[in-house]
Amino acid sequence: MTTPADFTFTDYQPYDFANRRHIGPSPSEMTAMLKVIGYPSLDALIDDTVPASIRQKTPLAWGAALTEREALDTLRETANMNKPLVSLIGQGYYGTITPPVVQRNILENPAWYTAYTPYQPEISQGRLEALLNYQTMVCDLTGLDVANSSLLDEATAAAEAMAMAERVSKSKQKIFFVDENCHPQTIALLKTRAEPLGWTILVGNPFTDMQSADVFGAIFQYPGTYGHVSDFSGLISRLHQTGAIAVIAADPMALALLKSPGEMGADIAIGSTQRFGVPVGYGGPHAAYMAVKDAHKRSMPGRLVGVSVDSRGNRAYRLSLQTREQHIRREKATSNICTAQVLLAVMASMYAVFHGPEGIKAIAQSIHQKTVRLAKGLEALGYAVEPETFFDTVTVEVGKLQSVIMKAAVAEGVNLRKIGETRIGISLDERSRPITLESVWRAFGGDFKVAQFEPDYRLPSALLRRSAYLTHPIFHMNRAESEMTRYIRRLSDRDLALDRAMIPLGSCTMKLNATAEMLPITWPEFAEIHPFVPADQALGYKAMIDDLSEKLCAVTGYDAISMQPNSGAQGEYAGLLTIRAYHLANNEGHRDICLIPTSAHGTNPASAQMVGMKVVVVKVSANGDIDMEDFRAKAQQYADTLACCMITYPSTHGVFEESVREVCEIVHKHGGQVYLDGANMNAMVGLSRPGDIGSDVSHLNLHKTFCIPHGGGGPGMGPIGVKAHLAPYLPRDPSNPDSAGTGAVSAAPFGSASILPISWSYCLMMGGEGLTQATKVAILNANYIAARLKGAYDVLYKSEKGRVAHECIIDTRPLAESAGVTVDDVAKRLIDCGFHAPTMSWPVAGTLMVEPTESETKAEIDRFCDAMLAIREEARAVEEGRLDRTNNPLKNAPHTVEDLVGDWDRPYSREQACFPPGAFRVDKYWSPVNRVDNVYGDRNLVCTCPPLEDYAEAAE
Amino acid sequence: MTTPADFTFTDYQPYDFANRRHIGPSPSEMTAMLKVIGYPSLDALIDDTVPASIRQKTPLAWGAALTEREALDTLRETANMNKPLVSLIGQGYYGTITPPVVQRNILENPAWYTAYTPYQPEISQGRLEALLNYQTMVCDLTGLDVANSSLLDEATAAAEAMAMAERVSKSKQKIFFVDENCHPQTIALLKTRAEPLGWTILVGNPFTDMQSADVFGAIFQYPGTYGHVSDFSGLISRLHQTGAIAVIAADPMALALLKSPGEMGADIAIGSTQRFGVPVGYGGPHAAYMAVKDAHKRSMPGRLVGVSVDSRGNRAYRLSLQTREQHIRREKATSNICTAQVLLAVMASMYAVFHGPEGIKAIAQSIHQKTVRLAKGLEALGYAVEPETFFDTVTVEVGKLQSVIMKAAVAEGVNLRKIGETRIGISLDERSRPITLESVWRAFGGDFKVAQFEPDYRLPSALLRRSAYLTHPIFHMNRAESEMTRYIRRLSDRDLALDRAMIPLGSCTMKLNATAEMLPITWPEFAEIHPFVPADQALGYKAMIDDLSEKLCAVTGYDAISMQPNSGAQGEYAGLLTIRAYHLANNEGHRDICLIPTSAHGTNPASAQMVGMKVVVVKVSANGDIDMEDFRAKAQQYADTLACCMITYPSTHGVFEESVREVCEIVHKHGGQVYLDGANMNAMVGLSRPGDIGSDVSHLNLHKTFCIPHGGGGPGMGPIGVKAHLAPYLPRDPSNPDSAGTGAVSAAPFGSASILPISWSYCLMMGGEGLTQATKVAILNANYIAARLKGAYDVLYKSEKGRVAHECIIDTRPLAESAGVTVDDVAKRLIDCGFHAPTMSWPVAGTLMVEPTESETKAEIDRFCDAMLAIREEARAVEEGRLDRTNNPLKNAPHTVEDLVGDWDRPYSREQACFPPGAFRVDKYWSPVNRVDNVYGDRNLVCTCPPLEDYAEAAE
Repeated sequence: MTTPADFTFTDYQPYDFANRRHIGPSPSEMTAMLKVIGYPSLDALIDDTVPASIRQKTPLAWGAALTEREALDTLRETANMNKPLVSLIGQGYYGTITPPVVQRNILENPAWYTAYTPYQPEISQGRLEALLNYQTMVCDLTGLDVANSSLLDEATAAAEAMAMAERVSKSKQKIFFVDENCHPQTIALLKTRAEPLGWTILVGNPFTDMQSADVFGAIFQYPGTYGHVSDFSGLISRLHQTGAIAVIAADPMALALLKSPGEMGADIAIGSTQRFGVPVGYGGPHAAYMAVKDAHKRSMPGRLVGVSVDSRGNRAYRLSLQTREQHIRREKATSNICTAQVLLAVMASMYAVFHGPEGIKAIAQSIHQKTVRLAKGLEALGYAVEPETFFDTVTVEVGKLQSVIMKAAVAEGVNLRKIGETRIGISLDERSRPITLESVWRAFGGDFKVAQFEPDYRLPSALLRRSAYLTHPIFHMNRAESEMTRYIRRLSDRDLALDRAMIPLGSCTMKLNATAEMLPITWPEFAEIHPFVPADQALGYKAMIDDLSEKLCAVTGYDAISMQPNSGAQGEYAGLLTIRAYHLANNEGHRDICLIPTSAHGTNPASAQMVGMKVVVVKVSANGDIDMEDFRAKAQQYADTLACCMITYPSTHGVFEESVREVCEIVHKHGGQVYLDGANMNAMVGLSRPGDIGSDVSHLNLHKTFCIPHGGGGPGMGPIGVKAHLAPYLPRDPSNPDSAGTGAVSAAPFGSASILPISWSYCLMMGGEGLTQATKVAILNANYIAARLKGAYDVLYKSEKGRVAHECIIDTRPLAESAGVTVDDVAKRLIDCGFHAPTMSWPVAGTLMVEPTESETKAEIDRFCDAMLAIREEARAVEEGRLDRTNNPLKNAPHTVEDLVGDWDRPYSREQACFPPGAFRVDKYWSPVNRVDNVYGDRNLVCTCPPLEDYAEAAE
Repeated sequence: MTTPADFTFTDYQPYDFANRRHIGPSPSEMTAMLKVIGYPSLDALIDDTVPASIRQKTPLAWGAALTEREALDTLRETANMNKPLVSLIGQGYYGTITPPVVQRNILENPAWYTAYTPYQPEISQGRLEALLNYQTMVCDLTGLDVANSSLLDEATAAAEAMAMAERVSKSKQKIFFVDENCHPQTIALLKTRAEPLGWTILVGNPFTDMQSADVFGAIFQYPGTYGHVSDFSGLISRLHQTGAIAVIAADPMALALLKSPGEMGADIAIGSTQRFGVPVGYGGPHAAYMAVKDAHKRSMPGRLVGVSVDSRGNRAYRLSLQTREQHIRREKATSNICTAQVLLAVMASMYAVFHGPEGIKAIAQSIHQKTVRLAKGLEALGYAVEPETFFDTVTVEVGKLQSVIMKAAVAEGVNLRKIGETRIGISLDERSRPITLESVWRAFGGDFKVAQFEPDYRLPSALLRRSAYLTHPIFHMNRAESEMTRYIRRLSDRDLALDRAMIPLGSCTMKLNATAEMLPITWPEFAEIHPFVPADQALGYKAMIDDLSEKLCAVTGYDAISMQPNSGAQGEYAGLLTIRAYHLANNEGHRDICLIPTSAHGTNPASAQMVGMKVVVVKVSANGDIDMEDFRAKAQQYADTLACCMITYPSTHGVFEESVREVCEIVHKHGGQVYLDGANMNAMVGLSRPGDIGSDVSHLNLHKTFCIPHGGGGPGMGPIGVKAHLAPYLPRDPSNPDSAGTGAVSAAPFGSASILPISWSYCLMMGGEGLTQATKVAILNANYIAARLKGAYDVLYKSEKGRVAHECIIDTRPLAESAGVTVDDVAKRLIDCGFHAPTMSWPVAGTLMVEPTESETKAEIDRFCDAMLAIREEARAVEEGRLDRTNNPLKNAPHTVEDLVGDWDRPYSREQACFPPGAFRVDKYWSPVNRVDNVYGDRNLVCTCPPLEDYAEAAE
């Protein structure tokens, strides 16, 4: 009996075999969309959009796309190649326990991890509150006045602190003193940052080697990398006498027991909050902190959350003092920092909320007591243990036994720290158990039980902390898990993230962060590897990084990749350092001109400034392309000193410029290198390769193009690709000054390595073909929006054939003239429609830049277009006098439940207010606040949790 | 330098060391609460509440409570003792791929897993929609008219189908015919169920052995357990000639390719939806299905979701035909089923939504093609492969090589099925990979590559499916992961679960389901173990089950535990079967009287009926206690035939009856056994043990007392504990008729084993002391509510000292008289306040039973009390004429956004409507529908997704 011929079996590919995961429009939807745009096929659209001259010749291919199951199996096998031993290496990275309630409800919850940066405060109140908690926690622990909402890592934070010190110092010296007890990677990054700016780094013992009058600032580590706990008050007083700035790099866990940096007089404190519940993750991501005295707050880099009010006068949070940021200051910027590590800062803040001051103090005490016990055991064995007083770290002189003991420890499942040739460092943490101590003793030749040694204290009495911290009620909430779960849920419900709606942010590529890609990052085999473990314990990481690098080379046409930069801006900085090193190596060190079009993202000039280059701005013509005449002239003018140009492709105006090859040729002809900003790689992958077009180096935003979620404003990963001639100058290992390469840019060798499984899984599950299809559909979606909005809005900067790339700029300026409707009004009205606003006023003031990405379906895009068209009609009603010019749904947006409940004396209906086209009826997203007052917030700067009385008021 | 003496170190225990996870009120909150109740200490309150006569003598103790990290480490070590091989055993359990988006956003999402049973439809619209999708899926695949929203497992469903067949059959015969191709565990459960009811089970080949005129019904397996795919149409016609009922147990995956049971004329179809994305989990939990012809729908057991309208006429979902349920029918019930497997049914339905009909069909085809390839390879090796046509399962005759090949397969990492002494069964599934087939061939001595064999078809041509399924639009939604994520999120946002608010359900113990307890259940080492693997592959499960059993014995005072019952009602049934078997073994088989107080939960009499016992109802006195006089009289009256009594302790009225010991003594004196229902164990753990009081057997609701989440209405686990004399009669292994014990009650030996890590972790992290403290605080919280509501409401059934146990009954009947405010009005008004209603009208009509559990904080309980007090004041306003009698906030509750947006002509304000005391301002929960019309829904029964036109309307 066989199956009859007329019973045809389908050749339908189930979801997982057909890349339906990432690609929003179904095949039939694509057909309908192409019809609207006026093309017979997707390829025809692409051929008309991406110039033939820049198309890549061979398709991307690295074998068949894996299914989710196959990819997860591959990740599992790779993870199993890593060996998560107990690491007592310390050096800025410590074992920690992520509270499960935080792991599941924040780190593993798309409501938190798919959110965007909180530029739109109304739909970001949840994470803004969590970040305010974070800032309050940092201020409390450091004893300083203002903290930002996190930086990339401790070493970067130190470099930022140095740069800030140079700016605010009253000293005119160009020397920065660095405590030899700073972590090696911190010292490495300070050197990287100082060198191009002409500052001298002097490393030494601050108590004996520092001449305070000769320096503009100094940094001290507290506790020191080898365990020392010193009082820097005297040194700081001396620094202040000559107007120099004192920076303390402090471990927040130690600060639970020790006098704060602020109490010592420090101007700036920096450090890492990793050990507040964020796994080590082979180096990151973690949230570094920076806190400063009030006087310096306007000079502080990074994002700052503040308290303001909404249009009803209710409290509302927002990002404060945004004018400090590089996208405003451009080449006048002194930092290119534009990412915080929001997701990790939120986790660290929740750790503090969860444990409260009593809990944090008890954890710190427990760590200290274990360390004292450990030291006693080692002393009983006859070892010399340093220092006399310590918090969690001791250093043991072992002579020629160093490698023997280290190996014995590994055999016990424990990693220790190699210091010099005769010493061993040991740092304990929250996870250290009695058996951990006993293992260490065995490695040192001792056979003790923990109970043999009394717990005791060896903290310096003069430095014991007597000031309070975490006094705010939020750190004293009831800690039953029910309460914590509900607090986290309430905050997340206030925000609008990708798990509820499209986030059509131009240049930010808010695409799907697929669950299969996210699952592996919380596996212990990826999460619990210390960044400085022996190589044979991280073979899985190596295999993944090697394979991902190979794939990224194939995507970009470059020859080598550095995974070190842990943000896009860091990638730019690393790329320019590479170019600089190349010129230096070729005896062309005088080349310091960087050509940048006016349309460039603000990080470009800021990064150039950081490597000591001079920015020369190139004009952009009316159609948005680089003004080739001006470009040629400037390149010619600076032919002798041209270091590089920085371009974005497709341009920040969302167009594939035909002239890009010529730009590269001109630069090369005049001795420069080409930096192609990879922000818009989502429009290129599989279709065009920067390396083929003529570019020498690019960074890739893995958090844009390669599916790492935005995390509510971080983390990111910004690896750089380079052509072969630049490969020798890529960043070196930050923990090893003798390693090959140029200055290190991140604290960890591979940046935020623990989120690389996301990008790798994406590449594996899409295959080259799938990635190419994604690019094509991203372009389709953008052109579909442009086509649907035609007539209602002008789309700026189309190509000659009328096409946009993967994003489009919608001109709302005419509405301002005709109806007084600003781009802000449109953005806030979109909230009523259930959308996050597109990118506002960038790259052109008064416009909206929309990037739908390939992940959005036709239905969701139509919902957005319906909303935009309805907004146009509302503006028309204002134009025609059918709606009031100041009291209309656009001006009053977003509308809240408070509006509905209260008296209604508006000249339009509640229905019209709350259910414009696009808004879901049953599942409507309600903004928790009305429009937030930005001016009030900057004028009345409050950057920590408001005082108790405010809460009492709110409770009433 | 040492730390000065004046620097006192705190002895504060951080969260994780102090059982703050589960215990809501902080120490200071407890002090305040005790003050309100009027006690100086918690122990004083407990001493006044729990009679000294029943207090246990020695405290619970099994070592120190573990921290979350220690517990997770223990679970990890235990998990590693399991060996998750590839299991091709089949027999009702198959490898499946849980879509990651479903795993993370449903199975691992507290918004789904902490929800309660959807009795309150307004706050359950999300999961009701998902269940309606499930019912629609089942109806489509089976070709039948009405499906319930799931049953416990396939074997239980078969037993329920048999019992239903007996009810609706027009035949008066007492024989039920069972296809010998049914799964062994199905046959086992049919025998268990039939025997006490006096029905005969005849197992055989239906085509040769069945005399249709002699049976009231028959069940056939499709495909059969050994792979056969047979046409039962002829047999069914013959059955129908004598009014007998035909049941088909069908694999829903096979139905994607095969003619449906409905098309063969079957009256009932049952089966398991496990392979629709739910891991095997060593036996469960999974959702079984049952579908019936329209004519039989009112006889169908289990929950049924239907479509109705709300008070605005908008579509709303609800549980239909609840009058069929045992809590209404009591001893007239024919089934005690009161749990569905909601969480798993939701997962299976999402699997269907996710893949759609094309995807399901493609997956089924792929499984079939792999099986054909496998068969070809085995045939090429010279083996006889049966049957000729098959779907996914083949049976191979191997003679004396059986154990050799089985072992060789295990060495290859594959489990095969032992059939008899000379045959081997192999079932492929969605996870089977080319290397899986190659491994099997190697075990059979072959060295083939998959590519050597053409994919082909061996389905019986006459049984190929030609009818459509999953035609509803919901199964054709865009399957991009963004859409799926958002659909799941939207549904979950409509529901109110424990992650947002207290669910104060009397008798249901909605306590915290801690994250640390939930994490391990999705580890592959627990999730991917087939229930019938060799014992040495499940040593982790064994260790856990043994230790948990030991702890539950310590808690209950029993001597042995059976983990087999997978719901509370199943536990009752198993317990009564055990008692019955004990009497039979003692030649007292005539004992068949079961004494049950009128206050008992409806499952008690229903369970007694199922084991053929006669229920004799005992009166309850005015104070809620058992009427001892009546009890004594009835026991005396039935002294010769008394089998047992069933009591609940503390009573369903929430009181610790002093007389409980006497009750037990009376029963024993008259030759009976005592069944103590464990529903209220949360009031006893650590304070009192059923086994000490005189009870012989109890079930424990692990999903109440031991932290397994309610999953929106299932799964549960209802293990039973017994005294030593009953231990030999506990349920036997369902897959092995020769194993010791009485009839099996679940398809898998340890029921829903994969959720046991939750209860075990809870015991480990609480320790005996923590569990005892939890009980005390549960009692504190209930008494606090009673105290706070004093004056506003009467609390029924207090002890002589004025105390309630862990729950209290609030009398709202006076409001009905004075203000026309019904218990329904109060319940719905609580939704406006942001709460799930308490248990309504049980055990006393017109009252609310409130059980806060120990997990709720004082703040949350106060919020609830504030809401209840405000409701009382609103009723008073009606009483006093200040509010209208029919148009008031209570009658119109719950209020929705639709109310706010529309015209408002009510005699109270929008503010009053939407923000009563208790309601959060910013974070308010909005009911997605107005009050649901129950009568309309039952009169106009629609139990599948409404037709397309309805959606088109809704879209407008």
